Order: sequence, then C-alpha cells, then structure tokens
Amino acid sequence: MTAAHRRPVPLAKCYRLLNHGPTVLVSAAHNGRRNIMAAAWAMPLDFQPPKVTVVLDKSVWTRQLVEGSGTFVINVPTISQLDIVETVGSTSGLEISQEKDLDKFKAYGLRTFTGDVVDGALLEGCAAWLECRLMPEPHNQNQYDLFIGEVVAAWADERVFSDGHWHFEGHDELRTLHHVAGGHFLVIGDEVVGKVLERAED
Amino acid sequence: MTAAHRRPVPLAKCYRLLNHGPTVLVSAAHNGRRNIMAAAWAMPLDFQPPKVTVVLDKSVWTRQLVEGSGTFVINVPTISQLDIVETVGSTSGLEISQEKDLDKFKAYGLRTFTGDVVDGALLEGCAAWLECRLMPEPHNQNQYDLFIGEVVAAWADERVFSDGHWHFEGHDELRTLHHVAGGHFLVIGDEVVGKVLERAED
Repeated sequence: MTAAHRRPVPLAKCYRLLNHGPTVLVSAAHNGRRNIMAAAWAMPLDFQPPKVTVVLDKSVWTRQLVEGSGTFVINVPTISQLDIVETVGSTSGLEISQEKDLDKFKAYGLRTFTGDVVDGALLEGCAAWLECRLMPEPHNQNQYDLFIGEVVAAWADERVFSDGHWHFEGHDELRTLHHVAGGHFLVIGDEVVGKVLERAED
Repeated sequence: MTAAHRRPVPLAKCYRLLNHGPTVLVSAAHNGRRNIMAAAWAMPLDFQPPKVTVVLDKSVWTRQLVEGSGTFVINVPTISQLDIVETVGSTSGLEISQEKDLDKFKAYGLRTFTGDVVDGALLEGCAAWLECRLMPEPHNQNQYDLFIGEVVAAWADERVFSDGHWHFEGHDELRTLHHVAGGHFLVIGDEVVGKVLERAED
C-alpha cells in the first residue's frame, strides 16, 4: 500500500518537493465535486511560510473548484503514473459533459485519500503532496492565470524523499516526470553535487 | 565553439526550454555593470506572447540590474557547468566587496555573448537562452519577489533542442540541472511518451 510509505514533510523543507521542477497534478474539491489536472507551470515561491505558485488557465474546471473552496493540492506524480498524467492533462472535467461534470477520479479508477485540508482529492501513488490554502490575488489570477497558495501540509513517499532530499536510486518506478510538450516527458535522473570554484586572479 | 551550435528558437515554442523545470541562471547588465545568479524558481507563464516568471530575492544584486535595465536573460545551464551554477548561486556580486562590485563573469572566467536585447551577459556553453523584457509589476516584485518578463528572443544548442523538442541522447554532457538544495542537483534523464487512458465503464 502506498499509504504505508507516506510520511509528513516539515513545512520548512516542503519547497524541495518542487524545487527540481517536476510536472504536477493540481486537484481540488468543492461542494461534493472534485477534479484533477496536469500543470507543468508550478514552482515554489517562498520558504517561510512556504508558498507555491501555479498557472491555472481560465478554461479549466479545477480553477473554479480552487476559487470556490480556497484550497488546492499539488500532487507530484511518478513515471508509474505517466498515462494518468497524460490523461488528466488531456481531458476536461467539464467539456465531456456539459450537463454533468465528469469525475476524473471515478472515470479513470484513480484512488484518493483525504489530507489535512482537502477532502478526498489527494491522488494515491504519487511521490509527494502539498496541500495549499489559496492566497487570493485577483490581479494575478485575472491577468496572468497565476494562483498563489500557502502550503499548510506536505507529505512524501519515504522511499524516494526523506531528510529533505530526493533519493530515487533503486526506485526508478517512482521518478518524477517533467513535461516538454504534447505528451513527451523527461524523467528525472541521478544526483550530482556542485562545488564552488576558486576565483581567478585579478 | 559553442556558438556554432546556437540556433534561434521560434518564440511560440520557447516555453519548452523551461517547461521541464530546469534550474536556470539569471543574468543582467546595466550601465556597464553585470551579474549572473542561479535560480531554481523560474517557469513559463504564457504562450503568446511568451512570458516567464522568476523569483529574485531582495538581497540579490542581479535584481537591481534587472530593475535598472528593464531586461534580463534566463540561461539554461548544463551538467558541464555544474560547478559554475553552484558558484554563481553561492557568491554575491555585492557582498564580497562593498565598495566595488564583483564581476562574476571575470572572476570565474565565464565567457559571454551579446544577444538581441542584452549586451554581454548571455553565458556561453548553456543549453538554451531566453532574453526577456521586464513587465513591471510593483506589487508582485515587492510582495513576492516575483518578476515577470516577456520573452523577446530565444536560442538553444541544436545538438540537444530542435524542432521544439529536447533530445539529450548522445549528449549527456549537455543535460539540464534541477536543484534540490545545498548544491545537490538532479540531472534530467530520458524521454517517455504518455498515452490517454480509456474511461472505465460507469
């Protein structure tokens, strides 16, 4: 079970779940309706209190749920979920049926769990999760489709993230995805450590 | 020579240079002074006209050059530049000398070229470059250290990016870097292609 490996991440280090630029799944729930979508345009915005920012186009249904509930989840999916990412990034919870919105979780058999803030919209099997409270910024939302959230809870799969660091070795099936375009993704690779160079003589 | 492989990227596809979440180097020049710094918090913001957003802390010298010149460059460095990235991310162009600012390019022997908009602050040897005009947003800059730029020119090394796609196979030395924390980076890996799942029966 995935839940067996899920561990809380201290908020001071939760930016590290997004720092390497993975493509994420944004999910939200409001008034008994919920949705999940793919987003390549998400990043940390601050350390303390931790904030993140994500672009949600005016056409997407998840945006309405975020605005309605004032909360959202950043799920960090793995290569094992490649087709799920492509699917929830290619289908709309509203376009398919104009009268009755599609629950993508049900439609594609996606299992969820309930977090500290958001009910039943955290996707099982991801590498990490950040639950966020929307910080309303009407100008950014209207002008740039840019949404800012304060992270209020975070978890990661301890097999690949612990003590503030990713360690994917031995768990290739849990590596993060990095979208380029049109269903083409790059998979994150291995770790390298940089060192500070000596200054040249003047 | 690196310049031999540098090719313009159509602006409609320049978001793909950042879409997979690489750590970048932000550079700027103003009134004969210039600087370069590392930034993990950068992402595309719009397709057309193409925009990007990047977080520049109030303490960094590059920020003053960006505000002064109204332009900046997003350089996408490679694993061959690992120690350069760590170095320009760990040193300040102002802290070292309070009286005379440090030219990190000179101090670390970094070669540059001149772009369409920014003089002498594009770092040779990167995988890609985006030149940007600052779109002033005082609230975002003051409240969130968030800077928005319109991309006005873009290039990439054709050995690893062409026809709108990254293709690192055979050029491991040009793979992009994705910072986690404290000098620990993940290197981007290989490509996978997602497919859309069938809906479960109701």
